[in-house]
Amino acid sequence: MMATIIDLRSDTVTKPTDEMREAMLRAEVGDDVYGEDPTVTQIQEMAAEMLGKEAALFVTSGTQGNQVAIAAQAGRGEEIIAEAESHIFYYEAGAVAAIAGAQLRQLPGTRGSLLPESVEAAVRPLDIHQPPTRLICLENTHNRAGGAILPLAHLQGVAKVAERYGISVHMDGARLFNAAVALGIPIREIAQYADTVQVCLSKGLAAPIGSIVAGSTKFIEEARVWRKRLGGGMRQAGVIAAPGMIALQTMVERLAVDHENAKRLANGLKNLPGLRVDVESVETNIVLVQVEEHFPISAEELIRKLAALGVRVSQFGAQTIRMVTHKDVLEEDIEDVIERVTNCLGAISP
Amino acid sequence: MMATIIDLRSDTVTKPTDEMREAMLRAEVGDDVYGEDPTVTQIQEMAAEMLGKEAALFVTSGTQGNQVAIAAQAGRGEEIIAEAESHIFYYEAGAVAAIAGAQLRQLPGTRGSLLPESVEAAVRPLDIHQPPTRLICLENTHNRAGGAILPLAHLQGVAKVAERYGISVHMDGARLFNAAVALGIPIREIAQYADTVQVCLSKGLAAPIGSIVAGSTKFIEEARVWRKRLGGGMRQAGVIAAPGMIALQTMVERLAVDHENAKRLANGLKNLPGLRVDVESVETNIVLVQVEEHFPISAEELIRKLAALGVRVSQFGAQTIRMVTHKDVLEEDIEDVIERVTNCLGAISP
Amino acid sequence: MMATIIDLRSDTVTKPTDEMREAMLRAEVGDDVYGEDPTVTQIQEMAAEMLGKEAALFVTSGTQGNQVAIAAQAGRGEEIIAEAESHIFYYEAGAVAAIAGAQLRQLPGTRGSLLPESVEAAVRPLDIHQPPTRLICLENTHNRAGGAILPLAHLQGVAKVAERYGISVHMDGARLFNAAVALGIPIREIAQYADTVQVCLSKGLAAPIGSIVAGSTKFIEEARVWRKRLGGGMRQAGVIAAPGMIALQTMVERLAVDHENAKRLANGLKNLPGLRVDVESVETNIVLVQVEEHFPISAEELIRKLAALGVRVSQFGAQTIRMVTHKDVLEEDIEDVIERVTNCLGAISP
Amino acid sequence: MMATIIDLRSDTVTKPTDEMREAMLRAEVGDDVYGEDPTVTQIQEMAAEMLGKEAALFVTSGTQGNQVAIAAQAGRGEEIIAEAESHIFYYEAGAVAAIAGAQLRQLPGTRGSLLPESVEAAVRPLDIHQPPTRLICLENTHNRAGGAILPLAHLQGVAKVAERYGISVHMDGARLFNAAVALGIPIREIAQYADTVQVCLSKGLAAPIGSIVAGSTKFIEEARVWRKRLGGGMRQAGVIAAPGMIALQTMVERLAVDHENAKRLANGLKNLPGLRVDVESVETNIVLVQVEEHFPISAEELIRKLAALGVRVSQFGAQTIRMVTHKDVLEEDIEDVIERVTNCLGAISP
Repeated sequence: MMATIIDLRSDTVTKPTDEMREAMLRAEVGDDVYGEDPTVTQIQEMAAEMLGKEAALFVTSGTQGNQVAIAAQAGRGEEIIAEAESHIFYYEAGAVAAIAGAQLRQLPGTRGSLLPESVEAAVRPLDIHQPPTRLICLENTHNRAGGAILPLAHLQGVAKVAERYGISVHMDGARLFNAAVALGIPIREIAQYADTVQVCLSKGLAAPIGSIVAGSTKFIEEARVWRKRLGGGMRQAGVIAAPGMIALQTMVERLAVDHENAKRLANGLKNLPGLRVDVESVETNIVLVQVEEHFPISAEELIRKLAALGVRVSQFGAQTIRMVTHKDVLEEDIEDVIERVTNCLGAISP
Repeated sequence: MMATIIDLRSDTVTKPTDEMREAMLRAEVGDDVYGEDPTVTQIQEMAAEMLGKEAALFVTSGTQGNQVAIAAQAGRGEEIIAEAESHIFYYEAGAVAAIAGAQLRQLPGTRGSLLPESVEAAVRPLDIHQPPTRLICLENTHNRAGGAILPLAHLQGVAKVAERYGISVHMDGARLFNAAVALGIPIREIAQYADTVQVCLSKGLAAPIGSIVAGSTKFIEEARVWRKRLGGGMRQAGVIAAPGMIALQTMVERLAVDHENAKRLANGLKNLPGLRVDVESVETNIVLVQVEEHFPISAEELIRKLAALGVRVSQFGAQTIRMVTHKDVLEEDIEDVIERVTNCLGAISP
Repeated sequence: MMATIIDLRSDTVTKPTDEMREAMLRAEVGDDVYGEDPTVTQIQEMAAEMLGKEAALFVTSGTQGNQVAIAAQAGRGEEIIAEAESHIFYYEAGAVAAIAGAQLRQLPGTRGSLLPESVEAAVRPLDIHQPPTRLICLENTHNRAGGAILPLAHLQGVAKVAERYGISVHMDGARLFNAAVALGIPIREIAQYADTVQVCLSKGLAAPIGSIVAGSTKFIEEARVWRKRLGGGMRQAGVIAAPGMIALQTMVERLAVDHENAKRLANGLKNLPGLRVDVESVETNIVLVQVEEHFPISAEELIRKLAALGVRVSQFGAQTIRMVTHKDVLEEDIEDVIERVTNCLGAISP
Repeated sequence: MMATIIDLRSDTVTKPTDEMREAMLRAEVGDDVYGEDPTVTQIQEMAAEMLGKEAALFVTSGTQGNQVAIAAQAGRGEEIIAEAESHIFYYEAGAVAAIAGAQLRQLPGTRGSLLPESVEAAVRPLDIHQPPTRLICLENTHNRAGGAILPLAHLQGVAKVAERYGISVHMDGARLFNAAVALGIPIREIAQYADTVQVCLSKGLAAPIGSIVAGSTKFIEEARVWRKRLGGGMRQAGVIAAPGMIALQTMVERLAVDHENAKRLANGLKNLPGLRVDVESVETNIVLVQVEEHFPISAEELIRKLAALGVRVSQFGAQTIRMVTHKDVLEEDIEDVIERVTNCLGAISP
């Protein structure tokens, strides 16, 4: 009998809930390019309020939210500071250079976080040879750092540096709700340290499509122009804003369950032969698993073997596997995963 | 009593049908960034087949479809030939220069169509001073030319020129289904003259969101990279592909009704004092109305007065008004519009 | 015996004078990237004064001067109005889109000049679909219009439109000294109608290399950054600024001779069988010659035949030949050219 | 009495020799945009031969040489690997993103050199989220690493990685002649590990203006188009190519003197109180001097004090000073500098 598939590749695979489906069915819609879709307007107001910003804009993806925020705040030949393993640098197809025409300066962080003094040291002096620093991008939680939460003290410190030099801060908060829930504080208390922020509705929150970018009213006007330019202007977008609104209203608190499941998973894997998991570093819904160097097979092969056993995970470097918990993975699935991985390793080990 | 609003500003305002809503509710979905959304895959195959192309890609808007097609086929400092009033030049927020980095050469057409010989004369010779010509963009039907259908003979001729010079042809077919229905031929017989084509699902076809871009398999691979770069990669996009599929299956033939209504509207307005309408030029669902030069009020004011009477139309130049028929405007609404316009003009005229 | 070569292809072929060579030999130099080359500083001050602007910048070419002026004043997705046959559109390798990321709107002019009302009609309204208009580019004298001088009344009118809409005006004055000499007025009286202006030292003025871009102090600061970005920052640039200064001081007035020679040439060719020359339209140093449609050989072939007789000219369209007079073509050379062309045609005609 | 100024800020401040001035006076010239300047043609052939490449192109600066090489080999949204402190990233005003639209990936090196295995690990896998790796840029000698020579074994290793993945290698050889002279090998033996290479004529070689970019014939054709686009096409460029040729013919071997002077300078400064100099690391003509952390005054202030004593040096970080030796600094000047620095420090120390 074929085992059920447990998909830990990403929280992007979450399927919309029945309530979201119903919301699509009933959503009041209009032409949002004319600003006339009431549901889109409503989610934008709701999100701006939650994030503590003047205004918000509904976009099709986290990448689009980041790119409109960047293009609206930095231009050709200007420089943007970002952590060296951030999504904007790593996984957005070089869009910052292609669209904004700006140079990304990659600063190595610690668990995805940049010290205020490192950021300050990287701000360019006034010199015709050097690109002027215009923007600092922070990713929170930080994907490649295993869902790490950026310490509030760092955020506050970076915000001060930014203010001192007249630079904006953008927060790629694709998983910012995970940080807020894990810290037990309202999301606006984190978002306050950034001028502009992007949050995804389609990751842990399980909406089918969509992200929100928020900031000042003036910024949102400029972001709207860039959204249009990238082809992100949509017509009866209420049909996807409606499930997005359900996501914001009902799916945030339950992220705590994903975080518990991630801990449970990390604990279950940490003692398995050939794998290393730092349980302490599992702060939200991402578990990074290191395949030991002298393991008989590569991480890539191990991933294929696990897939054959119905456990889908992602490769995240030569020796690293990423597992992400989310609403479509239940507590019992976690036990199941641990068991299948244990069996898989048992069959491999010498 | 307040009159019902009849919205002739654009066919983009069409609301999804109940069947489309139902399709969203039931759509089978997956993560389309991983290529795993079966509904998206299905609409892409269906659309490729209809358009006679190897492959297709689901995108969020017509602008996005045009821009990924352009960026995939032309680059920095290269030249693209387009008709001087085309949407790509006029209404896409300068995206061709911003994203592809390419120069748009604007050739004046006749009713939106370019003669093959004009195109040929505009192809750049090999000369270090001049940008190499890489792409020809045609818009069919042509919006600013009042929904004009590009003559097949022109398309064929331009295709030959393009082939001779090794240049690609992209067709902005936001309203290409209108052309096909009006000509009474399958859409692929028009699309055959272009290497790549974009068609909108959210205009006359009434889907809430989405367009299709189609071409060779190799082109679609490159277009997919550009879609990702623009943030157009979506997750459970099946929820909007599903109504898009209904649009392709059930909404094409009924465009003939919109065309009849447009003719009816044009006939009803042509003899009104102060307005000029060329009924012959109404080929599809767009009616351009000229406000005569010595009319007591401006086109802009007339539009405001009509809006107050519940008739919404668009300004399309200093003296021009555009009216677009679509599925949410019925035959009786047309009579109603004519009556209201007549009354409006009666109250104005000296 | 081989005839001497008379090169009428362009005034760019002019060789530096002995005085210019001597100036290179003796030029005081420094590192201009540090702003320490006294000769460069001197030519910039001299040029700013002549052009009636606050500041000026020495650049390597007319294209570079135009491009830094454009990039400093318009950005990604913004629109620039230019005449449809202007050098910036025609002969700068698509640089506006590649570097500034801006869209060029090509307006058809009359003899290269745009009517203020055409410019005004092309200014974009505030609309999210449309690129905002940021800059108007004028070319004076206009190369493809045969060295035509833009009427001062047009310049003044366009400047007023620009001011009304808060748009800048850049003048591509590669041959602006020709206009000033032909009009008999100081160049600053023409340059006053533009915010920024570019003039070439290496065309009729015969310097080996270099152009000047001028405008406000703030603009020049930004232009300097863009010059650096394009790799136009030079070290001991005094060696080429020195002959440039000689050009400004000694070569301007003699352009009148080139203009007389152009008239003489036009008059000598106008009655030859198979050619058409509009002598009236020869205002400066460029003569456009039309090869009649039923002429036995193409313009391209005629150019080759003339080259074989030692007369070098440029092709400027399917049936058009351009001849440019300059300091290395003397009055007797003109007589010689007329004779050789006459003989050439005699050998061809049926 | 005012002390003579000894300028160690950069080797870019070198003034042309009398022989170079004479060469300018006599240079045979033509219009190089038409490819007709014999002196430019000659220097291009000479440089291509020296560098062991098929063809070469004369450009106005090192930045322009790098940027045309990059734009010709990488495009919008593609990735370029460069060392984290390289000139291309640090000092070219963000041009890579602005012009090529490509993303620079900054890899930390050791003394400016990248290990082949680090480069290999940074090559992107085929993944729609990730920008494809198109180019590797190496800087040799490495400016911010204090004129360090990249080990040939690293170059060879990186070249192999590049070949394996179908990626090009560009060498920013602004000071590549220094490396060749220090290693005692022909420059082509270093250049062989790169597909394209840029060398400056205006640094240690003392030409007033100009750099060379070299590679395959096909590459040079594309680089020429980009040079035109950046406004780097020049007319009678022979006047600056002529001194460039003198530089290539007569100024290379004497770089050994600059290297000896740099060693002499480093030795003279290494024991001064408050400064730290790693004499071993002085491989060519650059000396980096660290100002100790508890020194009474900042590096910035020290630089000002030295300037007041007629010794001009550059700041190169919060605590770092750069001194560069070159032909206009003689052996006795070095002794003089050491003495003045000694006196300066004596007056400061507590």
